[in-house]
Amino acid sequence: MHHPRTAKMKELLMDPTRFGQLRTVNSIFTFAADPDFLENDIRVKPDLDAHGALGDAGWYCIRAILWATDYQLPNRAIALRNPILNTAGVILACGSSLIWDDGKVATFHCSFLSHLTMEITALGTKGTLHLSDFIIPYEESSAEFSFSSNAGFDELVTRWDPMPSKHVVATESPQEVRMVAEFARLAAGIKRSGLEPERKWPEITRKTQLVLDAVKASIGKGFEAVEIVG
Amino acid sequence: MHHPRTAKMKELLMDPTRFGQLRTVNSIFTFAADPDFLENDIRVKPDLDAHGALGDAGWYCIRAILWATDYQLPNRAIALRNPILNTAGVILACGSSLIWDDGKVATFHCSFLSHLTMEITALGTKGTLHLSDFIIPYEESSAEFSFSSNAGFDELVTRWDPMPSKHVVATESPQEVRMVAEFARLAAGIKRSGLEPERKWPEITRKTQLVLDAVKASIGKGFEAVEIVG
Repeated sequence: MHHPRTAKMKELLMDPTRFGQLRTVNSIFTFAADPDFLENDIRVKPDLDAHGALGDAGWYCIRAILWATDYQLPNRAIALRNPILNTAGVILACGSSLIWDDGKVATFHCSFLSHLTMEITALGTKGTLHLSDFIIPYEESSAEFSFSSNAGFDELVTRWDPMPSKHVVATESPQEVRMVAEFARLAAGIKRSGLEPERKWPEITRKTQLVLDAVKASIGKGFEAVEIVG
Repeated sequence: MHHPRTAKMKELLMDPTRFGQLRTVNSIFTFAADPDFLENDIRVKPDLDAHGALGDAGWYCIRAILWATDYQLPNRAIALRNPILNTAGVILACGSSLIWDDGKVATFHCSFLSHLTMEITALGTKGTLHLSDFIIPYEESSAEFSFSSNAGFDELVTRWDPMPSKHVVATESPQEVRMVAEFARLAAGIKRSGLEPERKWPEITRKTQLVLDAVKASIGKGFEAVEIVG
């Protein structure tokens, strides 16, 4: 969220000539937890962090999807069948589809049982954004993403025209430093300048949790659609 | 299927130390059809090619998923809600989840209404394969894919260690030429060497169609799970 890459990507998503209207987002966040984690971590204990992989890894997928939609809540969540639960009933892997009444759809998959993977693909009517390291960038000093716009093929359909472009965004400070700086800025605004608390961060946090709760409820109801009300 | 990249990727997927066991596949194939296509193409006419985007674009997604599972049929297909149909009821965009009884899951999305996108992500317990041009490679003479294996982070969790590796596979002939050469080889084997027809291609074609039919049936049945029997 705090990496300068995020703002750069949003600029492209907001461009009607290069990206058009958002239609679909797919997001994946998984990591292969070790046996000790799967036995003892608070995230696999029903009386500690009962949301398991959904609460830990799915949270990032949901946030990424909401980010792409400019935080427009989906109208419904329908969890995908066959989530994997541990013996205490905590989610170790699951997925969901999210639906907006205007025709947008999204899917995500999260897991403690697959190799480290962090994917976002956002599809518009005129462009596609893709990146494979959306939570922790591959490198500290800069981060990449790929963007394709108004693409087709050459005459013989043997190559793309134009090719997707690779964008590299440098950062002087790691994203964690930028997060703390943002927090300090907001706190200083309240303490020193008499500003009201900013609404953005709690609002998108609450929306992320609303979607997460709807996915969990859908699993509980046998994969029925669960309405999301803001 | 006929590009040498495909065999190279399969080698990695079959490697238990680098990829582990396959857990999840996600595939996307979409293109933004022009108004003339959406009005007049045989693929949007119920009495011509009634499978619409599922038959045209979803076919490739299903084949890619079957390829990753070594053509092990899923046990069930459950179409995702809110497919987009034209006024004649032909599918313009849809998605599905596929489920194997051993815990593997897959999802795909296909559409005539989103920008040109061709994604596969295959997640194993120890590795991740990703490519964004799985049907028509970006370039004619070589094709890339990204593979990440046994990845984690550095001590301060500011970068990946190791980074995913980029693989480039050159080809002397375009994949279409290789397809025709394969067909000629098989025909010559029957005509000149008295060989039986090879079973591989009709078998994987039939399996692709079985899954496609199950997804279509699931849409017809209000997104219920549809059993797939080989």
